[in-house]
Amino acid sequence: MNSFGEIFRITTFGESHGEALGVVIDGCPPNIHFDFEFVKSELKRRKPGQSNISTSRIEDETFEVLSGVFEGKTTGTPLTLMVRNHNQKSEDYDKLKDVFRPGHADFTYQQKYGIRDYRGGGRQSARETVARVLAGAVAKMYLKSQGISIQAYVSQIYNIKLEKEYTELDLNQIESNIVRCPDPEKAKEMIALIEQTKLEGDTLGGVISCICKGASVGLGQPVFDKLHAQLGKAILSINACKGFEIGNGFESVNLKGSENNDAFFANDDKHIGTKTNHNGGVLGGISNGMEIFFRAAFKPVSSISKQQDTINISSENTTIQIEGRHDPCAVPRAVPIVEAMTALVLMDMLLRNKMYQ
Amino acid sequence: MNSFGEIFRITTFGESHGEALGVVIDGCPPNIHFDFEFVKSELKRRKPGQSNISTSRIEDETFEVLSGVFEGKTTGTPLTLMVRNHNQKSEDYDKLKDVFRPGHADFTYQQKYGIRDYRGGGRQSARETVARVLAGAVAKMYLKSQGISIQAYVSQIYNIKLEKEYTELDLNQIESNIVRCPDPEKAKEMIALIEQTKLEGDTLGGVISCICKGASVGLGQPVFDKLHAQLGKAILSINACKGFEIGNGFESVNLKGSENNDAFFANDDKHIGTKTNHNGGVLGGISNGMEIFFRAAFKPVSSISKQQDTINISSENTTIQIEGRHDPCAVPRAVPIVEAMTALVLMDMLLRNKMYQ
Amino acid sequence: MNSFGEIFRITTFGESHGEALGVVIDGCPPNIHFDFEFVKSELKRRKPGQSNISTSRIEDETFEVLSGVFEGKTTGTPLTLMVRNHNQKSEDYDKLKDVFRPGHADFTYQQKYGIRDYRGGGRQSARETVARVLAGAVAKMYLKSQGISIQAYVSQIYNIKLEKEYTELDLNQIESNIVRCPDPEKAKEMIALIEQTKLEGDTLGGVISCICKGASVGLGQPVFDKLHAQLGKAILSINACKGFEIGNGFESVNLKGSENNDAFFANDDKHIGTKTNHNGGVLGGISNGMEIFFRAAFKPVSSISKQQDTINISSENTTIQIEGRHDPCAVPRAVPIVEAMTALVLMDMLLRNKMYQ
Amino acid sequence: MNSFGEIFRITTFGESHGEALGVVIDGCPPNIHFDFEFVKSELKRRKPGQSNISTSRIEDETFEVLSGVFEGKTTGTPLTLMVRNHNQKSEDYDKLKDVFRPGHADFTYQQKYGIRDYRGGGRQSARETVARVLAGAVAKMYLKSQGISIQAYVSQIYNIKLEKEYTELDLNQIESNIVRCPDPEKAKEMIALIEQTKLEGDTLGGVISCICKGASVGLGQPVFDKLHAQLGKAILSINACKGFEIGNGFESVNLKGSENNDAFFANDDKHIGTKTNHNGGVLGGISNGMEIFFRAAFKPVSSISKQQDTINISSENTTIQIEGRHDPCAVPRAVPIVEAMTALVLMDMLLRNKMYQ
Repeated sequence: MNSFGEIFRITTFGESHGEALGVVIDGCPPNIHFDFEFVKSELKRRKPGQSNISTSRIEDETFEVLSGVFEGKTTGTPLTLMVRNHNQKSEDYDKLKDVFRPGHADFTYQQKYGIRDYRGGGRQSARETVARVLAGAVAKMYLKSQGISIQAYVSQIYNIKLEKEYTELDLNQIESNIVRCPDPEKAKEMIALIEQTKLEGDTLGGVISCICKGASVGLGQPVFDKLHAQLGKAILSINACKGFEIGNGFESVNLKGSENNDAFFANDDKHIGTKTNHNGGVLGGISNGMEIFFRAAFKPVSSISKQQDTINISSENTTIQIEGRHDPCAVPRAVPIVEAMTALVLMDMLLRNKMYQ
Repeated sequence: MNSFGEIFRITTFGESHGEALGVVIDGCPPNIHFDFEFVKSELKRRKPGQSNISTSRIEDETFEVLSGVFEGKTTGTPLTLMVRNHNQKSEDYDKLKDVFRPGHADFTYQQKYGIRDYRGGGRQSARETVARVLAGAVAKMYLKSQGISIQAYVSQIYNIKLEKEYTELDLNQIESNIVRCPDPEKAKEMIALIEQTKLEGDTLGGVISCICKGASVGLGQPVFDKLHAQLGKAILSINACKGFEIGNGFESVNLKGSENNDAFFANDDKHIGTKTNHNGGVLGGISNGMEIFFRAAFKPVSSISKQQDTINISSENTTIQIEGRHDPCAVPRAVPIVEAMTALVLMDMLLRNKMYQ
Repeated sequence: MNSFGEIFRITTFGESHGEALGVVIDGCPPNIHFDFEFVKSELKRRKPGQSNISTSRIEDETFEVLSGVFEGKTTGTPLTLMVRNHNQKSEDYDKLKDVFRPGHADFTYQQKYGIRDYRGGGRQSARETVARVLAGAVAKMYLKSQGISIQAYVSQIYNIKLEKEYTELDLNQIESNIVRCPDPEKAKEMIALIEQTKLEGDTLGGVISCICKGASVGLGQPVFDKLHAQLGKAILSINACKGFEIGNGFESVNLKGSENNDAFFANDDKHIGTKTNHNGGVLGGISNGMEIFFRAAFKPVSSISKQQDTINISSENTTIQIEGRHDPCAVPRAVPIVEAMTALVLMDMLLRNKMYQ
Repeated sequence: MNSFGEIFRITTFGESHGEALGVVIDGCPPNIHFDFEFVKSELKRRKPGQSNISTSRIEDETFEVLSGVFEGKTTGTPLTLMVRNHNQKSEDYDKLKDVFRPGHADFTYQQKYGIRDYRGGGRQSARETVARVLAGAVAKMYLKSQGISIQAYVSQIYNIKLEKEYTELDLNQIESNIVRCPDPEKAKEMIALIEQTKLEGDTLGGVISCICKGASVGLGQPVFDKLHAQLGKAILSINACKGFEIGNGFESVNLKGSENNDAFFANDDKHIGTKTNHNGGVLGGISNGMEIFFRAAFKPVSSISKQQDTINISSENTTIQIEGRHDPCAVPRAVPIVEAMTALVLMDMLLRNKMYQ
């Protein structure tokens, strides 16, 4: 439920306005140099209040290492990372106690458990992803040492879409703008649109693309834990994600078999590749050595400041107007979360694969 | 790896041309009337050779109950179902021993394991889905008793697309034609296109839509085992599936928050619903009582009869021309598989939810 | 690895001299009243420095609730409990950096991981059991509400053995003495022996007996997760535990089938029981409604102040003399740990059993 | 429930008088030579009707490989082994339909599931261990290639006890007699006693000792999956097992710390060992390179031909006299089952340990 992964297995905990959020990583290999500054920088990428297109809410995200690191290295015992909650204006949320916000999980949590921590969304809050980014940063440390990199970026906001493929883009530009789009022109348009939508009290969704380079052949487990199935689950479990496609995904439907198949070829040095990569680096659920890429759709943020019809806890019709500082568009902040979940999947598959070595 | 589900946990086994394919279901509730004829009819829906748009290969799919049923009822012990392989013309496949088929998992299996049963694709063959359909049929028996139904249909083949929503369609028409499309006009077009493509020696992909009715509020587990994340994994694990979206999925990006949010309302009898259902029946990963629906993209079948560039097991460039009887379009036959995987997810979530009752 | 249980699943973390020790409980039912004082009292029972027969080391065991409790009740989300480490005299342990203590896991951890937190034994320290007692206390809260009680006591220290069966003892006397033995006379002898052994710089082991009352019929899962198999694993996983037996255990070998079988009988009100209970409340791995009881052997504490032969990290022969404040006999302090692990098993089995209800 | 192991994960299925018994092994490494004759010989060791001290019931135990082996080697895909049931005289068992046998799981299964296959004990029958022996044989193939051997023997039947340690015995003698005791004199006494007890219509239990040689340092996972905790669970899950102890187990209570600690020493070639092995090759739950040994207690067979008091399915008092061909003592036949379960644990731990390599 709150765990993910088989060998590199994380368990996350914490509510938006509880004491703390954190993660226990069980199965972390020993002797990894724990790069404190890198974890900090990853957390910072996720943090709200980074720019005028994100929420102005300030969250302190100082993290602590509670266990599993000794003299700067992982020990193979459970590695626990935690962030305390500080900026908790719980009183803001008292009005949400008895009314269910449309698009949120207030109603479903209440019905499932008969109780919920309604302050800031409690466990359903996107603040839970702090724990994912912490764990993902640890996975990235290891993957980097194995020559594997993961880069995600915003490829669409509402109707503004990157037409170029990732191979035509300069991925070094991703972090150069606040919307995390590697095309500077499109980035400007996206930012302008988000700013305008914010004024309207409305919100926007978008698409994130993600590219993994350096993965060797053999990652992924048949038949249920296929690499892209596990990636799909990982990404779809992120708040607001509604769609996932590997390689050319839904577009593959518009090609015939003879067009869609990726022909193999061997270089003079017997290195094997495919001429095209419609399959996104995965064949039969196992990585084939090509770049792994996928896209994910994020719906617009459900917290809008416009008045909405809804019901209350007594099942009566009412209206709600959500106040507070919310993101007009959370997609740019979801970029490091997509990377983190991807890192967790690759890390787990890499360790699972050791059995065959 | 070859298991799926937490409480209702299936483990499948078998190769395309090995002795048998089967499934062990651990965690099946006792005292379910085992409907032998229903399982048979579900298997038949998946079977090749059903029509001239599927492969003419005949596969005997007589199944046996090896354990877990006593006097016509499940006993709560492992329920094992098995189908023997009979129509094994393994010699047909000898030429595939040393050459990797583009789009298939020959290469990735060989690299991962250093060995593979190359006859008919071995474990990577879509014949493995026989086991999924068997298990799904058992899940469906139970779900039916709980008032839950699952219906999938073909909503797109190549460029022929159903424009109507599922609410505007007569889902009783799905099984009335060989392409499993509830719109008879579109069905005819699809069939004609598949027949023509077959003549060309090429293949087509498509989209399957799936609707679940009758699911109560509360199915799905935060935060990683969200209902749609688990559905996504289940569906993406089906051979040739490249994309998954819940509710309006990628389309949700084209709506603003105020348009995409589903307003709650209460009836006079305090029954709660949402005015729209853009979220596809899931909020925060938990079912909200509305219909659950999703779409999945299937790439065109990789086995084409046209000549293709590829490599052999010695990493040399070569070409391949695949013979044998293959599906020009496997999407219609994937319909019962999509339903089976969906049933497995709902069944597991239903049992997991018992903890809260 | 560091998780235990299927439905009520705990993950513990922390090193003896790291920042903190704690536990995340995933799958805790919602709406349990969280009895803060009860958890505190359970922790206190495990605490060192309770008496002159335990170590004089003082450990602060103030615990914090980090997540999963809202307005005094569990919410169904991960429940995290943590104790900070304070009394860390790490310098005491510097001499253990390069020398392996006999009977301890210094050597095996070092060999397995290539690194270890040697301060106070790190993760192998019995201080880890703080987390088990915390989790066990939560399980006990729930079990109590279901009418299930668990009571463990010391039934043997070295050669001083309780000859009476638990049915002949007054279990209310257990906590009346520092050795946790319900027979006051034997308790005195045990205490005297421990005190004398302490003066000798030596240590003692013993046996703990445990009785569970109120468990209904049906707990335990065939065939591998039998109730007593899972209890065995749980108890054997406690530091220094070397043996486990359910019911009359090894003694059953001295009876013939006709003597050992427990005859069933029905009361006038159709309540079913067995005339004897040699099986310890378990038949075929499933509770039969009788009292569940078992015994566990604990070896003497490995930390003795006498000089011992050993090796160092360079694989050279050397000697070691362990200083510091160690328990001459840890068995009395293991009593609440045995209860905690038992509670975790029963809790998990109780929730697993809900599927059949 | 019916699965065991994390990486080398087996799932068993089947009832005593159902269609078949079998096991799916998921996570079996590829490219292991599958030694058909070895599996056959292991099955034969477990088989009833081997001698006049076991049941005269003949069970056909011809096994089939259903999947996972190709051209004589494992492929890394699920390996399924199955034995058909043939000698099913179900009518013999009709009288057991409504009466619960003392010492058996008839009552607990019926209460838990509300249904049971009463023929021959159904799933609770010791015939289920056929599947364990099949899986264990596969594990043994691999372990052997790693230089690890497992040998179990009968060290006690009723009051006839081997006084010698395993180091003083010739383990090659184990299979030289039908009681599987390496001391020929004691073996004769045991056989005579069993024969006499058979005439009395009664049954006997005993103790099995098991020795594992060649295991390297590092097997076992802290803190819950300690090597001896997992072995304890594995062995306690075998039918009729009531106690388990590692190393000197309950005897360790009779030693002081200074006597019980195993001093380390290094040879001239820096090979490390311990001077004694009271801990049975495990320190802190991790193998230390010494021989791993343990003992397990088995209660006398519950099926006796003497008349017994019991109840029927309507909760009425009645008596039962069990007919049919039952083992007067099942301990010798449990020897290969103990070895199989041990092999499964070591195999799983070996594969888990690959993460650290």
